[in-house]
Amino acid sequence: MSKDVARPSLSDALTERVLELIRSGGLRPGDRLPSARELSERFAVTTPTLREALRRLEATGAVQMRHGSGIYVGADLERVVIPNPNVRPLQGDQLLQLLDARLLIEPPLAAMAARRAEPGDLERLRTVLDQAGRHLEGEDAELDAANMSFHRAAAHASGNAVLGEVIDSLLSVHGAEQREILRIFDDRRRDHEDHRAILGAIEAGDAGRAEELMRAHLRDVTKVIASRLA
Amino acid sequence: MSKDVARPSLSDALTERVLELIRSGGLRPGDRLPSARELSERFAVTTPTLREALRRLEATGAVQMRHGSGIYVGADLERVVIPNPNVRPLQGDQLLQLLDARLLIEPPLAAMAARRAEPGDLERLRTVLDQAGRHLEGEDAELDAANMSFHRAAAHASGNAVLGEVIDSLLSVHGAEQREILRIFDDRRRDHEDHRAILGAIEAGDAGRAEELMRAHLRDVTKVIASRLA
Repeated sequence: MSKDVARPSLSDALTERVLELIRSGGLRPGDRLPSARELSERFAVTTPTLREALRRLEATGAVQMRHGSGIYVGADLERVVIPNPNVRPLQGDQLLQLLDARLLIEPPLAAMAARRAEPGDLERLRTVLDQAGRHLEGEDAELDAANMSFHRAAAHASGNAVLGEVIDSLLSVHGAEQREILRIFDDRRRDHEDHRAILGAIEAGDAGRAEELMRAHLRDVTKVIASRLA
Repeated sequence: MSKDVARPSLSDALTERVLELIRSGGLRPGDRLPSARELSERFAVTTPTLREALRRLEATGAVQMRHGSGIYVGADLERVVIPNPNVRPLQGDQLLQLLDARLLIEPPLAAMAARRAEPGDLERLRTVLDQAGRHLEGEDAELDAANMSFHRAAAHASGNAVLGEVIDSLLSVHGAEQREILRIFDDRRRDHEDHRAILGAIEAGDAGRAEELMRAHLRDVTKVIASRLA
């Protein structure tokens, strides 16, 4: 038996115990956990072994380890679906599949948002569009982040958190390529106007129009990418 | 600065270097990596530090650490979306949202499968349904696994790997609840016949019918769950 490989059962069990500590303590994202030393004492394991369990939890967003500050409950603890943190920039076919996935899911979510968005959802959508508007003449990265926030907020406004997580995951891996899209789409204003029109339909409670506008918007983006890859 | 928390940049960089080793070496899922000791020498870090990076990669399915055997490339390395390994059994509302997500995505995937499934896809679908058939009188867990495999295989047959990963992720967190569904659905034969009919439509290349049957099937399941939660 190699000394290189720890007993998986121990690491699994430790991970479970840290999760149990978080949940039974009613800790929420952002709350601080005991230090690694305190945790290793509590669970009667060595600090390196405890740290392995923490790294597993960190990789999936269940905890956050802040250098020099401590260990905190992560924002993704209770998510169903998460983006793969190791993914490479998407290549041709995979990028088109990702856009097809968004085309399938986001238009019906826009319709759902038009039917049930709450004042807070609408406020959030307006805020991110205003931010995007201020970045129209600025850096690609900031405009990109604001535009992705719009798509995330629209998915969230649908009220289905699981589908919101799916879209968030798809957008996360999309980031780098998206900036390239911005450059080739080369019509930041039209992109922004598309987003404004979608928000208008959601605000008006017009589900059919919100769905149709979101579909047309994503089809345009897909068309540009596809022609570029061809 | 606390000694408890390692520099995140070192752990991040190490993770990147292991990924780079896998990718530049053209390693595929199942291929074996050098031992933790060899890797720590290669990257000039201590074994505990190296093991932290490996645990991060393990948590997201990029590597697999087999006790007493070694370190292998994991099956999920190149996925875009993964299930959260820390998720708890889904509760009422979250379970309904998950079923709504499946209802939105799986019917169009069944239609896509009817349009473009290849002989290997159809073979796989027949095999998992035959397995399910043999478990109809057997253990819940085995029948459940076979039924989930059918939904996974149908999504895969759509040809969109990203959407296949989304459905795989949703089904992974669904597992425990699904067995409960089987008990309350209490009509294993009807469930199985539903699956057979969906496969029939896919085999016949009838996209509209495949979509409609998948939707009706998932609506039935959702109805049973919703009435039970009410």
